[in-house]
Formats: sequence, C-alpha cells, structure tokens
Amino acid sequence: MTMGRRNAVRRAFLPLLAVTCALAGSAAIAQHAADDRIAQDGTVTLDGVRIGIPGTLSPEAKAYLRHLIVDKPFGTPVDGIANERKRQDGIMGEFLRPMRERYKVDVTRQTIAGIVTDVVVPAEGIAPQNRDRVLINVHGGGFTTGAHSAALVESVPLAAIMKIKVISIDYRMAPEYQFPAASEDVEKVYREVLKTYDHAHIGLYGCSAGGLLTAQSTARFDAQGLPMPAAIGVFCAGLNGYFGGDSTALAGPLLGMLPPPPGAAPPSRPSASGPSYLETARADDPLAYPIVSPDLLAKFPPTLFITGTRGFEFSSALNSHNKLTAAGVESQFHGWDGMFHGFFYNSELPESREAYDVMVKFFDSHLGK
Amino acid sequence: MTMGRRNAVRRAFLPLLAVTCALAGSAAIAQHAADDRIAQDGTVTLDGVRIGIPGTLSPEAKAYLRHLIVDKPFGTPVDGIANERKRQDGIMGEFLRPMRERYKVDVTRQTIAGIVTDVVVPAEGIAPQNRDRVLINVHGGGFTTGAHSAALVESVPLAAIMKIKVISIDYRMAPEYQFPAASEDVEKVYREVLKTYDHAHIGLYGCSAGGLLTAQSTARFDAQGLPMPAAIGVFCAGLNGYFGGDSTALAGPLLGMLPPPPGAAPPSRPSASGPSYLETARADDPLAYPIVSPDLLAKFPPTLFITGTRGFEFSSALNSHNKLTAAGVESQFHGWDGMFHGFFYNSELPESREAYDVMVKFFDSHLGK
Repeated sequence: MTMGRRNAVRRAFLPLLAVTCALAGSAAIAQHAADDRIAQDGTVTLDGVRIGIPGTLSPEAKAYLRHLIVDKPFGTPVDGIANERKRQDGIMGEFLRPMRERYKVDVTRQTIAGIVTDVVVPAEGIAPQNRDRVLINVHGGGFTTGAHSAALVESVPLAAIMKIKVISIDYRMAPEYQFPAASEDVEKVYREVLKTYDHAHIGLYGCSAGGLLTAQSTARFDAQGLPMPAAIGVFCAGLNGYFGGDSTALAGPLLGMLPPPPGAAPPSRPSASGPSYLETARADDPLAYPIVSPDLLAKFPPTLFITGTRGFEFSSALNSHNKLTAAGVESQFHGWDGMFHGFFYNSELPESREAYDVMVKFFDSHLGK
Repeated sequence: MTMGRRNAVRRAFLPLLAVTCALAGSAAIAQHAADDRIAQDGTVTLDGVRIGIPGTLSPEAKAYLRHLIVDKPFGTPVDGIANERKRQDGIMGEFLRPMRERYKVDVTRQTIAGIVTDVVVPAEGIAPQNRDRVLINVHGGGFTTGAHSAALVESVPLAAIMKIKVISIDYRMAPEYQFPAASEDVEKVYREVLKTYDHAHIGLYGCSAGGLLTAQSTARFDAQGLPMPAAIGVFCAGLNGYFGGDSTALAGPLLGMLPPPPGAAPPSRPSASGPSYLETARADDPLAYPIVSPDLLAKFPPTLFITGTRGFEFSSALNSHNKLTAAGVESQFHGWDGMFHGFFYNSELPESREAYDVMVKFFDSHLGK
C-alpha cells in the first residue's frame, strides 16, 4: 500500500481505532440509519449479496453483533482530546463492570522506572507456578486513549484466569507525544522488570494500538540488545499495523458502516485532535512496522495473533502470521468468524472467553517456570 | 444452518466443488461478463464498497487472481459424469504439467487391500528419516471427480519436498456411490498400511472433498477402534464440510461471481449428474460431520487447516480450528488473504509453495521416526 493510500485508510478508520474495541460512528451513520441495506436482523446486503450474522456464533455474540450493526451504540468521537479520553474511558467502564464481577482481581497503581503502571493480581493470589512469571500489557486505544481503562479491560481476565501478575503500562500517547515515545516507555519498564524476572518468564501483549506496540517494543528490545520475552501476543493488529487486504475493505460495511448512496453528501469526519502517534513513523522503519524486516522477524519470540473476520486488521494479522511462519518463528493464529476489532473487550461473549483461554494456554505453555 | 439452507448453499456451490481447485461458472457468468461491478484490474465493487486484489499477494498470485475474477477460465460443468470427469482431469492436467517439472517424483499404481492407489515417491529417493513414515492422501473433486488427477496435484509436491512416500487413494465417489463408501475405502487402505507402518508414523490429508474425507475417515478410525494417525491435514474444508459464515456469503462475489442484476433472468444451473455423495449423510452424524461431536473432536490428532479468505470454506475452517482448540486438541490454522478454494493446486504461486512448506513442516514435526 502506498503511503498516500495508507494515510487515507488510516483516516477512514481513525474513529474505529479510537473506540478501539468495536465500532465508532461518523456522521454518515446517523444519516443512513434507516438504510435498507441493513436489515433489522443484522443482515447486510451489498448489491444483492446477502451477508448474515454467522450461524456458528453463540446466541450472545449474535445478539451483540446485531446490536452493533443495527444500533451503532458507541456514538461518535468528540472534539478535544480530554473529552474524547473521558468518553472512551466511559465505554471501557461499561465493559469493565461485568468483567470485574466475573474476574476478581486487585489493582494497584505503581510507578516502575518512572512510568505509571496498573499492576493487576488475582484476588485469590498468584498461582505457585506463576510466582516467577509475569505478563506485561500495553493497552489499545489508537495511541490516544485507554490508559487505566482499556488497560484494565485487557489485563483483568488474564490475571484472574491464569492467576498471574499483569503489569499494564500507561505509555505516552498522541497528540502530546509521537512514535517512538511509547516504545521508550515500554523499554524502561521492561528493563526494570528484567531485574526481578528472567526474560524467559515474561510475556508481552496488547490489543489494537497495543498489538502494534507489542510488536514495536519487541523490535526495540532487539535493537537495544535486550533479551526477548518468552512469548508475545499481537491482538487486534498485525506486524504492519492494522490495514490492507480484504478485511480492511469489508470490515466497515459488514458492521453496517456503508458508503453513502450515490448523490448523498459525503460524511463529515471528526476533527483531528492533533498529530497522530504514527505520524513520525517511517513506513520502512522496522521499529515502527516490524513486518518490513525478515531478519528482524526471524528473531521474534513465539507469537500469538487473535482477531475476527470483521476486524479491519484481520488480513493484516493473517499475513503477519504467514510472514513469521515463513521466517521460521512459532506463530499461532486464532480468529472468530463474524467477530470484530477488539471483540474480546466484552467478557460476556463466550467467544471472548474462548479467546482468553487461548491466550492463557499460549502464555502458560511458553513462559518458563 | 438448517438442512434446507445447507442444501441450497451446497447446490449453489456445486460447480465450485466440482472444479475443486478454484472457480467454475454458471450461465450467470457469461451472461454478465461485462458487468461493470468487475473492473479489469480485478477490483470488485459491491454497492460502492471496493474490494481490490490484496496488495500483500505475490505478483504471480495477483495476476492469477485477476485472471480468475476477470476471465473466469475454468468454464462450466458439462452433462454426464464421464464427460465431467474428463473435463476436470484436463484442468488438473494443466496444473500437473508445471508441477511435475518442478517436483520430480515416480508414480506407480498399486492395489492395496483391493483399493486402487497412486503411490508417489520422490525421484531422489525417500529421505532416511522418512523410511518408516508415510502420508496418505485423499483427493478433492467434490466426491465426484479427481481420481489420479487431483490426487497427483495434491501428492506430488509433498512427496518431493518432504522426500516421503505418499499413497493417494482412488476412493469410491458419487454419483455411483454415496457416503460412507469413501470412508470405507480409506479404512481398508489404512488397515493395510498399519501392517507396515506404526500409526504414529502416518499422516493423512486432503483438500476440499478430501479435506472433509480426512476428517470423516479420522472419525471412522475412532469408531472402529483403530489407532489414530499422528497428524491430519484438513485443507480447503472444515470439520462440518465447507459452508457457513462470512466466507460462504462472500467468496463467490469476491471471485467475480455476482448475483444477476435486478430484473435479469436467474442463471441456469448445470444439470445434476445423479445423487450427491453426501445425500446419505445425516447432518447430526459425527462420521459425516465430525464437528457435531465435541467428544469425538477431543480424540482428534494434531490437525492443520489450510485455506484462503476467498475460499467459501474459510469460515468453516476457522470455526473448526476454534472447536478443536477448545476441545484441547493441537490445531494449527494457516490462511492466505485473497486466496481461494484449493489455490495451492497451482504450484506456480509463491503462496502455494509457502503452503507446501507449512504442510511439510507440520507433518515432519508430528510424525514419529
């Protein structure tokens, strides 16, 4: 993809990335809310091609996917980064409420190497076999939102299910900071964690911006001569970011975000809050987009991709899985048909809990004891 | 999916299954050959949603995918099973020609337990570490075609690359025979092979109908109290067959097979050659569709799925991978963005050779020595 095209796609998906977890709107959505291409049962019809909600999904996932497609519950981004962060934190809070009922954890805010973190431990205590193991999380939120909110949504289930300590990093974000500020923060925390934990006992993961940041940080560790973590989880992202391929073309439409009919006014875009985080990232820089360097990929630790066919990142994740495999790296890929960007933020979907189980099993089998 | 819906989908894809490898036509295709929804560069536009050929594909795959979408080179099924088999064998012959230049093998026809097989061995000889190992192939072709043609297309690359013996079974097919005739034939050969090879040294695989038959045979081995093979490859299929989900809705349209515009005459369907193979298979029978039995799935050996996002079976394979994983089975999934049903029949695509490497690595790491 050319940079021009990449930027156009990035702008088009900015609201999606900002909401991180699922869906966001643009003025186009309200405008075409009664679009006859979107049926009340969630079926989308494009030029006579009917794409229904997959029959293999759980009843809960079917209902939720229908709700996303038909009702578009997440609204639209607002002006001002403080306001937008508040709005996103509110959305994450709605996911956190049932999650914290289901998964009992204790959360403390700790400053590690000068960086603020949330340290999440299971209320029942860390399992004996995990006393010398730790997971590091880098949250999603389009490199603009999600500190202490998406961070917990991504950390609470794994801490509770695996009975392990999870350190979630409040890394620097845009518009105040640009690439590679977040990677620098992750490196600082990682160096400090290495004083207590063997690198082969550490896992690193994140979703969306956090998925890309996981890959970027891994590249940075290598460039800095640091030992690699035992395993990484690139969730809701690929090693080139999120875009390109069939899923980027189809994810929006299959979630009910259709182009305006011919002759309709183009949708208004939310105003940008400032420079994007990746504005300073060169397309050919492996520290920003590790996929560009086969030599680097060959040094990656075992990697797990988690995504869904209606995630715009699906093709990117699939392609990254192929590239890592071809480079001789152990790579695992798990996707759910019909599921969307960051679907597992919703812990009430059985598919999300299947995904947690895959993540836990992956880290448990790859982290040394 | 209900049986009625399942049958409707099956009928719609019958031509695709018959061609097995890629694409087939219906009268609708010629009729709308100049459809303005299909651009000369292979971009398909559905209601303003533009789906281009993925930029991550190799130049060879881009050109070939464009050719399939724009030119639809495989024609349409013909009346009479003998004629249709001859036509399909011709298509397979076109794939075989460059494949046999690239991969040198010796092929002998051998009758094993009364069943005709093609035994494919590398011209360079079997590698020392593979002298006590063997792969069994069951070919694709919609359970109606492909004996000695698709059979070789699926066997030649693996025999040559892995330097191992591959036995490809000429199992009974429709319209002359119905389920479970093919499973019975595979069982006979497997029982005979077990006299020479340890079950933990045997791999079983196939594409399309052969992917489903691999799963059906595995279920049958279990039901008959036979020891499981070391590993199986379910390619171009899932454990429920091929249909359901997003990919079944989208594969045809993304390959340029679009519904007729409003008001156009409905496409004519090729006349059926007789009863389909699966007509006698009950939807709730785990010997026909193993996915219906979690207890059976838990007993499956390590399984590899190979597919592409524009394969109608993609969602089925993805879902099967999730179900096996949830059942505690080691399952690996590899898909290629933009690639189609049986894409790796074309050995001249780098993506196909990536797929062969994945298959070889999988069997090499799972078969005992």
